[in-house]
Amino acid sequence: FASKLPNAKTTIFTTVGNLARKHNAVDLSQGFPNFKVDQKLKSLVTHAMKNGHNQYAAMQGYYGLREIISQKIEKLHNRAYNPETEITVTVGATQAIFTAITAFVNKGDEVIVLKPAYDCYEPAIALNGGIPIYVQLDADGYQVDWEIFKSKISEKTRMVIINTPHNPSGRVFSKEDMLQLQEILKPTNCIVLSDEVYEHIIFEGNEHQSASRFEDLAQRSFVCASFGKTFHVTGWKIGYCVAPAELMNEFRKTHQFAVFCVDHPVQRAMAAYLKNEENYLSLPSFYQEKRDLFLEGLKDSRFKFKPSEGTYFQLLDYTEITKENDEDFAKRLIVDYKLASIPISSFNEHNRQDGVLRFCFAKKNETLEQALKILKSL
Amino acid sequence: FASKLPNAKTTIFTTVGNLARKHNAVDLSQGFPNFKVDQKLKSLVTHAMKNGHNQYAAMQGYYGLREIISQKIEKLHNRAYNPETEITVTVGATQAIFTAITAFVNKGDEVIVLKPAYDCYEPAIALNGGIPIYVQLDADGYQVDWEIFKSKISEKTRMVIINTPHNPSGRVFSKEDMLQLQEILKPTNCIVLSDEVYEHIIFEGNEHQSASRFEDLAQRSFVCASFGKTFHVTGWKIGYCVAPAELMNEFRKTHQFAVFCVDHPVQRAMAAYLKNEENYLSLPSFYQEKRDLFLEGLKDSRFKFKPSEGTYFQLLDYTEITKENDEDFAKRLIVDYKLASIPISSFNEHNRQDGVLRFCFAKKNETLEQALKILKSL
Ligand SMILES: CSCCC(=O)C(=O)O
Ligand SMILES: CSCCC(=O)C(=O)O
Repeated sequence: FASKLPNAKTTIFTTVGNLARKHNAVDLSQGFPNFKVDQKLKSLVTHAMKNGHNQYAAMQGYYGLREIISQKIEKLHNRAYNPETEITVTVGATQAIFTAITAFVNKGDEVIVLKPAYDCYEPAIALNGGIPIYVQLDADGYQVDWEIFKSKISEKTRMVIINTPHNPSGRVFSKEDMLQLQEILKPTNCIVLSDEVYEHIIFEGNEHQSASRFEDLAQRSFVCASFGKTFHVTGWKIGYCVAPAELMNEFRKTHQFAVFCVDHPVQRAMAAYLKNEENYLSLPSFYQEKRDLFLEGLKDSRFKFKPSEGTYFQLLDYTEITKENDEDFAKRLIVDYKLASIPISSFNEHNRQDGVLRFCFAKKNETLEQALKILKSL
Repeated sequence: FASKLPNAKTTIFTTVGNLARKHNAVDLSQGFPNFKVDQKLKSLVTHAMKNGHNQYAAMQGYYGLREIISQKIEKLHNRAYNPETEITVTVGATQAIFTAITAFVNKGDEVIVLKPAYDCYEPAIALNGGIPIYVQLDADGYQVDWEIFKSKISEKTRMVIINTPHNPSGRVFSKEDMLQLQEILKPTNCIVLSDEVYEHIIFEGNEHQSASRFEDLAQRSFVCASFGKTFHVTGWKIGYCVAPAELMNEFRKTHQFAVFCVDHPVQRAMAAYLKNEENYLSLPSFYQEKRDLFLEGLKDSRFKFKPSEGTYFQLLDYTEITKENDEDFAKRLIVDYKLASIPISSFNEHNRQDGVLRFCFAKKNETLEQALKILKSL
């Protein structure tokens, strides 16, 4: 039979992760924390199971969770989403993204994708017969050139996918960026899919410029978020997305048949845990400390870098060390030096080689120290 | 914008469930247990969280779980699926079904669907541009007429969806049925999607005739299963599917971008819990007792029925009581009599009215007694 995804391979995260385990490498590749989860959060799941919340939750998500999500967004971004009609709890942001694309992209529709990009957008577009239109970010600062962006919009553009804070670059969209985007899209019917899974991990006291802050943008946007990223439990597979009622109604038609609903005890736990704002407001300083520890250690190394502005990823330019391509150097780092990272080429269009690797610093300080020792030896 | 699912409404389960709650009705509608979950199983989740299994599991599922699933199937059905390449853990059977359809059905492909049918097949087919070809089961015994079935197969048939034990009818495919199906499909390239979520709930000592028992069938089949149904935790959203490596490889291309992976602590818990065979081998007698209690109580009622052969659903023919159509009577039962069930018409082609309602008996005996009191009063 003919494959519907002839080009899909096992994700880079699985491939590199397997190699890292095989070589017993210090693993800064896939984005997940290796430190302990808050005991309180775990107890809340146990509590929810004990209280009998073990059967199907509502298809849209447990109402109490949607309510507190709504309050959080209103407080942070000053926009009120109706929990009844505009918020849906999903099996991680991945399912939210897949579902939004499936619900809206038709054969022949164009979808703007900024490159480098996280790897789950394009297969979803392909499965629906959509055509990805790439806007490649400059390898220098990974900023969007909005003139170029604008030139890619056509009558066929159905959707625009943005991602801020941006994985893998660590760039954060400014208010100016968002206003430009809003302006460019005004004369169009494009839907925006705004992947904001690192919304709470932003450094130097900067504010996250969510698509939900900009009224005109918000009216056409799905904003996707991840409790896995925010509360250090990537394996619990829970996130959510918000959108105006008309869009969300359409999203739910697919959602209810794609997964029906999300783990119920975990939803109860998240609802209770979200009530304490400190649980997410503490994130910027928590992760900035790790970023700074990591960058401080690299000062006397041969790596070049711009400090990550957000996410828990740091890009390192290794071109002073070797002329190898990204995949080859990433592989050699694992096999010969026992340190795993992700080659940025795997996120780029045509595998563009930037001479850059991505390191995840959502790790125990002692893991970061081990990594630094290796990096400084190069 | 044009909807990709113009005909999709909120599922009948959500609609009826909401009405039941509003009227504080005894709820035998949506299929989920209302009794307690085994404390051991809950403790296993707590234990897995404590042991630090809180980050992404492998995309295909936790290996230990795939291994024990493989052993279970080999023991029950005498077929060895390779855990490495032929088993994938999913977010409930719903996600397995959605993913298999998405991965294999192309625009214009025909998909055979037996009606009455559970409601998640058709939207998935529609989203992929497939054409459902219905085989309506006779309202008398809800048996498949294999001659009719055969006549619906064409060059365009890409997939055949079967479901045994069958929801909503409670019919169980016999060995003969499976052999007929196998024979009919031999000259074709059709893929089979075998929804076997009630595999362990079969009465009168009958055996479940899984598609994996019939070599020729197994080679073209996705067999989907549900831990939610089997271990009374429909809200934990975990299931799996098995298929030969070539098919599974294609399935995983979609799976990894649709959800990436499944709740990790729950996977660990299931792996440990599955080791005690009693946990699923005890199901037939456990549910047969409930079925028998329910049917015994209906003996002197005006409902007619054939005892359910499997699943935790019982159909009741109400035509001696009223000539109303299924939806109207189901609604009146909720509003006036405080008892919720599902009208079978919602599973039928063209809403065919069989004069039949579906009752879920996965309930505490005391709930069943309450329902019986109402049913006997009619
Ligand atoms: C689902 S694997 C991805 C983890 C991640 O977000 C990343 O490493 O970029
Ligand atoms: C996801 S709601 C469905 C529960 C069920 O299987 C049924 O009631 O038929």
